[in-house]
Amino acid sequence: MPTRPDEADPIPLGPHVALARRARAAQRALARADGARRADALLRLDRLLEERAGALAAANADDVAAASSANDGAGLEAPLVRRLGLGPAKLAVLREGVRQLAHGPDPLGRALARRELDRGLELEQVTSPLGVLLVVFESRPDAVVQIGALALRAGDAVILKGGAEARASNRALVACLRDALEGAGLDPDAVQAVETREEFARLLACDDLIDLVIPRGSGALVRHVQASTRIPVLGHAEGVCNLVLDRAADPDMAARLAVDGKCDAPSACNATETLVVHAEFLPHLARVGEALRARGVALRADARALPHLPGATPAGPDDGRTEYGDLVLAVRVVDDLDAAIAFVAEHGSAHTDAIVTEDPAAAARFLREVDSASVFWNASTRFADGYRYGLGAEVGISTSRLHARGPVGLDGLLTTRWLLRGQGQVAGDYGPGKRAFTHRDLPR
Amino acid sequence: MPTRPDEADPIPLGPHVALARRARAAQRALARADGARRADALLRLDRLLEERAGALAAANADDVAAASSANDGAGLEAPLVRRLGLGPAKLAVLREGVRQLAHGPDPLGRALARRELDRGLELEQVTSPLGVLLVVFESRPDAVVQIGALALRAGDAVILKGGAEARASNRALVACLRDALEGAGLDPDAVQAVETREEFARLLACDDLIDLVIPRGSGALVRHVQASTRIPVLGHAEGVCNLVLDRAADPDMAARLAVDGKCDAPSACNATETLVVHAEFLPHLARVGEALRARGVALRADARALPHLPGATPAGPDDGRTEYGDLVLAVRVVDDLDAAIAFVAEHGSAHTDAIVTEDPAAAARFLREVDSASVFWNASTRFADGYRYGLGAEVGISTSRLHARGPVGLDGLLTTRWLLRGQGQVAGDYGPGKRAFTHRDLPR
Repeated sequence: MPTRPDEADPIPLGPHVALARRARAAQRALARADGARRADALLRLDRLLEERAGALAAANADDVAAASSANDGAGLEAPLVRRLGLGPAKLAVLREGVRQLAHGPDPLGRALARRELDRGLELEQVTSPLGVLLVVFESRPDAVVQIGALALRAGDAVILKGGAEARASNRALVACLRDALEGAGLDPDAVQAVETREEFARLLACDDLIDLVIPRGSGALVRHVQASTRIPVLGHAEGVCNLVLDRAADPDMAARLAVDGKCDAPSACNATETLVVHAEFLPHLARVGEALRARGVALRADARALPHLPGATPAGPDDGRTEYGDLVLAVRVVDDLDAAIAFVAEHGSAHTDAIVTEDPAAAARFLREVDSASVFWNASTRFADGYRYGLGAEVGISTSRLHARGPVGLDGLLTTRWLLRGQGQVAGDYGPGKRAFTHRDLPR
Repeated sequence: MPTRPDEADPIPLGPHVALARRARAAQRALARADGARRADALLRLDRLLEERAGALAAANADDVAAASSANDGAGLEAPLVRRLGLGPAKLAVLREGVRQLAHGPDPLGRALARRELDRGLELEQVTSPLGVLLVVFESRPDAVVQIGALALRAGDAVILKGGAEARASNRALVACLRDALEGAGLDPDAVQAVETREEFARLLACDDLIDLVIPRGSGALVRHVQASTRIPVLGHAEGVCNLVLDRAADPDMAARLAVDGKCDAPSACNATETLVVHAEFLPHLARVGEALRARGVALRADARALPHLPGATPAGPDDGRTEYGDLVLAVRVVDDLDAAIAFVAEHGSAHTDAIVTEDPAAAARFLREVDSASVFWNASTRFADGYRYGLGAEVGISTSRLHARGPVGLDGLLTTRWLLRGQGQVAGDYGPGKRAFTHRDLPR
């Protein structure tokens, strides 16, 4: 439903509604701007990030220091510092991404379909901006630049809510984005930020002004957002990924993929959480278990797997459907491929599931029948990622079945419109006994 | 989130949950079936509709008679009888549609993208079934066959809730679909029906078992469904369509498109509701007004248009943002193209908006800047329709910006999956200073 900023509103507007309406107005102007102007804003952003590198580093140092002292002087844990920090190497990667977006093709106005309905009556489906995005993220200030640049390229306005611990960094980065927009002659309100949970909660209620919410962070954050709004949410609440070891699995490959899937980044959503083992593979399971134990992985094995896995502990009822986010791995044995596929459907989160097998027929069935966002044959579940898929920057990973599924790039920030160009044709002239449509597909 | 039918549930399942779970299980089996088997089910449906034509006609006659007598013996209004009736001509069209779907290409497993990530590591994005659909429709029993056949072709299960006045017809048609599934060796629970509002309301709460709700009927029905569920809803609550008469509009074409837009089917969602008139077109407005008056259209004109439209009444504040569904048309004057585009954004429902102009530059701006699902140049708003667009059968028209926008065909009943085929690659081998991805697009 369109917004109607001109309407007399009987209730005084809350500041969050005014902010969302400014975003909507700025988005309309951004959508009207041509691709060269949006690219110019990105190139200005790249230069501002260079010019203000010193001030950005100082702001980021303040955030890191404040977070460290807040943590009882004990210093932050290393992972949080890694996420919060914005050193020269991270900044260089961010700027490279911004330049790539600027120099890449304009994502707007691309024809997805063209069809002649009749002579002189041509239909075209074209990519268009999605609208106003509300993005909430934890710790990582780089998300401001990644998401802001993607939104700008896609003609979308964005309202950002970052983590309190990155407040100074976020403010400095948002200022770069807004100044870049202004420098390119665009409305800076296409990028706005809020800093409190209360403001964010009120924005979640603006379902007539905001088109999509993107939570970047923990499953708890995503679940909270999903439960708090009627606006569509792009994200995944859980990543319970399975690695199926088929009877025809190569044992060395099985060990390698299990170790990479679990250990490459145990807290990532695409980490492997469960090994689903074909009963006929059991004689080779010890080799996989040894490789995992050597990397410090704790195994929680069911009764049939346990004898093959020295040092493993017995699995409880939740092992096999749990996202550990840690060096813990469930091991469950099934009788055949049907049971493996059923296990994945019932216990996984439909995020990413992989099979290890030398049997092409088993692989074909798995690829066909497993209904998850990403389904792999002889590859680590860790490949489920926008950068690895070559999508350019990643907006997030979606386990929704609508709009965007799996790793989402720029395409997830677009919608489409149908354009019809005629010569005065009327619908009443067509139908049974009247003119017929030609419905001829045209080259795009 | 996947369903877990094997879990012990502490609360006894309501019958609606059991029904939805049966749908989910049947859907999984349907998704596994190959395209030939799903096509066979459709061909069996076509034959059953022929074999049971007599019984179907009798059931439909019962519905029409019951509805007529319920209406105080005064007989139903003609439009309702037209919607409720299922005569031989309608049945023939339905059967033709079913055969077309059966003989058309399999919509599942189509590659939308293929990319080499590295040598021997190939990514493919393929079309896949969306899942379980809940469809509610009013009066028209033909919706059972249209939606049921589309869902079956797309590998989706469907739960149907038809209007009470078509109960006998719906039952007979649902039986045809279920028998066709069974005859093809598929689980008949991929098509199920509920008949009461209570059952439907309970199903709307099953957001972990149902993927999409499709309401086919009035705006009031769509709004009710949208307000009653967390499941995504495909539909349009309002169709407030504008026809802009530019200063460079051909007056005869303007009159023709206004008459078709308003009179071809006044109750349709793509009917024109408002004429937005460029001030410089005012000298020609009388000709458009005459053509509309000759067709019995009541005009509600603002102060500037009124002098040019004999017989028109003054517009109130809601004229220009109202879906009349009747032979009533608002007329509003604007100063220039900018104001026309702003008017459409603020007062329309982003369903379908058209401009009449001989000026290609004005048309280009309109097509570029109007952010509606369908945007037309020199064509009637009535063309916004899945059949006219050549989408085959139409699922509905969506004013959502996500997933599907505008007229929606079979594609709106699909999702995608990412398939990755490797040779044992692990993610830890890639990255700065390690292996680089090739990211080479492959032919589809």
